[in-house]
Amino acid sequence: MKRRELLKGGSLALGGLLLTPFSAKANIFKEEFGGKKAKNIIFMVSDGMSSGTLHMADLYSRRKLGRPSHWISLYEENLVQRGVMDMASASSVVTDSAAASSSWGGGQRVNNGSLNIGLNGEEHLPILQKFKKAGKKVGLVTTVPVTHATPAGFSVYTKSRNSQEEIASMYSDLSFDVIMGGGHKYFDAAQRKDKKDMYSVFRNKGYSVARNKAEMNAAPQNKPLIATFDEDGLPYAADRNSSSFMKNNIPTLAEMTSRAISQMKDHKNGFVMQVEAGKVDWAAHGNDISALLYDQLAFDDAVKTAMDFAQKDGNTLVVLTSDHGNANPGLIYGKKVNDNFDRIQQFSQTNEWILQGLNPTDSVSTIKNRIAQANAGILITEDQAKEIQSYYAKAKMEDGVYNPRHLPFKLLSQIQQEHTSVGWISMDHSADYTELAMYGPGSEKMKSFMKNTDMHTFLLKAAEVENKF
Amino acid sequence: MKRRELLKGGSLALGGLLLTPFSAKANIFKEEFGGKKAKNIIFMVSDGMSSGTLHMADLYSRRKLGRPSHWISLYEENLVQRGVMDMASASSVVTDSAAASSSWGGGQRVNNGSLNIGLNGEEHLPILQKFKKAGKKVGLVTTVPVTHATPAGFSVYTKSRNSQEEIASMYSDLSFDVIMGGGHKYFDAAQRKDKKDMYSVFRNKGYSVARNKAEMNAAPQNKPLIATFDEDGLPYAADRNSSSFMKNNIPTLAEMTSRAISQMKDHKNGFVMQVEAGKVDWAAHGNDISALLYDQLAFDDAVKTAMDFAQKDGNTLVVLTSDHGNANPGLIYGKKVNDNFDRIQQFSQTNEWILQGLNPTDSVSTIKNRIAQANAGILITEDQAKEIQSYYAKAKMEDGVYNPRHLPFKLLSQIQQEHTSVGWISMDHSADYTELAMYGPGSEKMKSFMKNTDMHTFLLKAAEVENKF
Ligand SMILES: [Zn+2]
Ligand SMILES: [Zn+2]
Repeated sequence: MKRRELLKGGSLALGGLLLTPFSAKANIFKEEFGGKKAKNIIFMVSDGMSSGTLHMADLYSRRKLGRPSHWISLYEENLVQRGVMDMASASSVVTDSAAASSSWGGGQRVNNGSLNIGLNGEEHLPILQKFKKAGKKVGLVTTVPVTHATPAGFSVYTKSRNSQEEIASMYSDLSFDVIMGGGHKYFDAAQRKDKKDMYSVFRNKGYSVARNKAEMNAAPQNKPLIATFDEDGLPYAADRNSSSFMKNNIPTLAEMTSRAISQMKDHKNGFVMQVEAGKVDWAAHGNDISALLYDQLAFDDAVKTAMDFAQKDGNTLVVLTSDHGNANPGLIYGKKVNDNFDRIQQFSQTNEWILQGLNPTDSVSTIKNRIAQANAGILITEDQAKEIQSYYAKAKMEDGVYNPRHLPFKLLSQIQQEHTSVGWISMDHSADYTELAMYGPGSEKMKSFMKNTDMHTFLLKAAEVENKF
Repeated sequence: MKRRELLKGGSLALGGLLLTPFSAKANIFKEEFGGKKAKNIIFMVSDGMSSGTLHMADLYSRRKLGRPSHWISLYEENLVQRGVMDMASASSVVTDSAAASSSWGGGQRVNNGSLNIGLNGEEHLPILQKFKKAGKKVGLVTTVPVTHATPAGFSVYTKSRNSQEEIASMYSDLSFDVIMGGGHKYFDAAQRKDKKDMYSVFRNKGYSVARNKAEMNAAPQNKPLIATFDEDGLPYAADRNSSSFMKNNIPTLAEMTSRAISQMKDHKNGFVMQVEAGKVDWAAHGNDISALLYDQLAFDDAVKTAMDFAQKDGNTLVVLTSDHGNANPGLIYGKKVNDNFDRIQQFSQTNEWILQGLNPTDSVSTIKNRIAQANAGILITEDQAKEIQSYYAKAKMEDGVYNPRHLPFKLLSQIQQEHTSVGWISMDHSADYTELAMYGPGSEKMKSFMKNTDMHTFLLKAAEVENKF
């Protein structure tokens, strides 16, 4: 018998060690979709997810939960195509979320800060409007305001991503089927400049409005739904998990995703939705490891929700990606790195919770105790606590995205580093290509390197929707 | 005519925009290898390559050379399978190069610092010895000492990676066919503790010895070859490119790879070789952007050399990967990031060159001029130059791998950051999973997530070599 034949036959003990032949099943799932149309698309974005963020969430899952992350398990089981995506904007090799989402949503690179408005003022019709016109149901689910850059880039065009009240008004004309996330203040009459009650506008157009988990669950499946669960972004998963009030009132990303799917899945022409873990980006901007890790894990749970549906359904394309790197976090070599990483697994609150809850009058021991409480008993030194204190006395200031109070996020993460072994290159986006994986009809056509703008036509083609609007 | 049929037909103008159908050629190259045996294997390691390193080299290629990097072009053309690899060692989630190479070379996770010696002292026979016993020619090519961790992990077992003189002696018993790189001092009678002339030992066993490019080119193809082109590691590509002496005497990684292939390609049982860009890791340890970028690009040229051969040959498996992340470099968001990155493209020397060439007596203006000369005219401030100066006066010290003189690599990269927009998380390895791509026979069996130790049996199976030794 030749060696070649042996290899094909099965597990055989040859000479010395056992030799298991390659599985013939590799790629079998990908092949089964060949030529099929994607009736539904679930486009999932972990905003600002550097590769280290994805990998640390998988390490956490393996070390603490005893299983791979849902995302990486798709790689291990060879269920998806994998690639990288060049997310540069028209103005920079490092994109912001508005230009990034516009590249997918409108199919063109625009300047950072712009939402589907071209370099000469051209308006690019966003992809969810195209899918809606093609007869599909469409939805947005996010952990940041529903009017924030990433959902907005799939939905509207406007010169500035910052006009979120205006974006909320625009949404009311789109007849989208599900809109869920944060951002109450952009819909609330009392907080809007124009004093308009956007919820009334939506109700008059036939929408249900939900402001908490119970209302979301009670909303009828046959009416479009708009839900805002908090003023601005939703709480970080780590802080939510430590608060029974939040757990009772604010759904997880997976719960929102599940609700959105159930509401749209029986539509005869299918549905397209974007699901965003928007606060992964905010956490990276804050170099806030427990915020980052647990929000990425919450995204991973939403991946499972989407995949469970898609695997049963068989007609759903699931896209997993990010819009840009942010801070490129990683675990750094050293004798204590295993112990340090395992300690992060016990962190019960975010740095956001630590710093927002401190006051100018707090003593050094209050500061030390609050950090120990949040960070599994980590004891910072008196000097370190005094330095944190000085920021509240306004002796010092930090700037940064999503840090209006100039709190010492950078300092805290530097102090934590000897206890966490986590490093960050900055508090802002990076030029790294983003991770890209696809499951379902169309995924077999994906190339391992993709330019962001090619995603637009890719999705339309996968769904066999003409790009004619 | 139905839309579905239209989509299958070809490029058609429908309603509005042109709709190009998906290419039917996707994956065709991968499929052509199904079931075939890998007669040859070229295993290519960019040591310490974080994802940002790979991506910046591609950005450089596109912006400066007007084409993608060779590695990423394989993704763009869908010629390879792509995945990530978990490189953890027995002792840590963050591996060193010795444990990393041992995981592939010996198929077992060992403690950091160990070369194929298990936790209870077991000796794991390294993969190049297995392939040699199976009748193949085998080779090592690297830009660091040939006795360094990554080549050694494929070749020998020993308790400590640091015993490079001993490793040089071990090599003389292995009958390997090509050994090329740096590390003269570990072979040189005058510098070895035992005063043994290792070159004589190799010559007596039938080897040619080469110490420069001309000798490499003149060496006969029908004799095994050992070549050491420098005392320790070879010069960084950036510094080599600025020195006609070095260019004349020291081959590039691509030139060494080409020579090794030509020497082994006609062997009837095929060949297996490891090619390492070892100084990508050293550059990351030094947060040295021009060292990092140009050594990664030199690796990319070697990828082209290997791929050109493999595509013509049709029987060669090419593996592209790294053994661990290092420093997670990335380009950081900001108004100047494009200009800054384009300026890096003009850097003519490394930070290694800048700092090794300064002396304690050098003036502030000498320091400023040397940096301006190396860094495309960047002008650092008087205060910054004074701070660098203080390290030479031994007022301050930096520690770090590959920094025996305690030079201010970290300080210099921090000073450069406002001019380069490049950030680093640390000066050491990271836990990030590493990039993995494969071309050729066997590649179709690769999964998108691989554990490092599975690589060992994967390579043996791809070549249909029994794991019996
Ligand atoms: Zn951001
Ligand atoms: Zn290293």
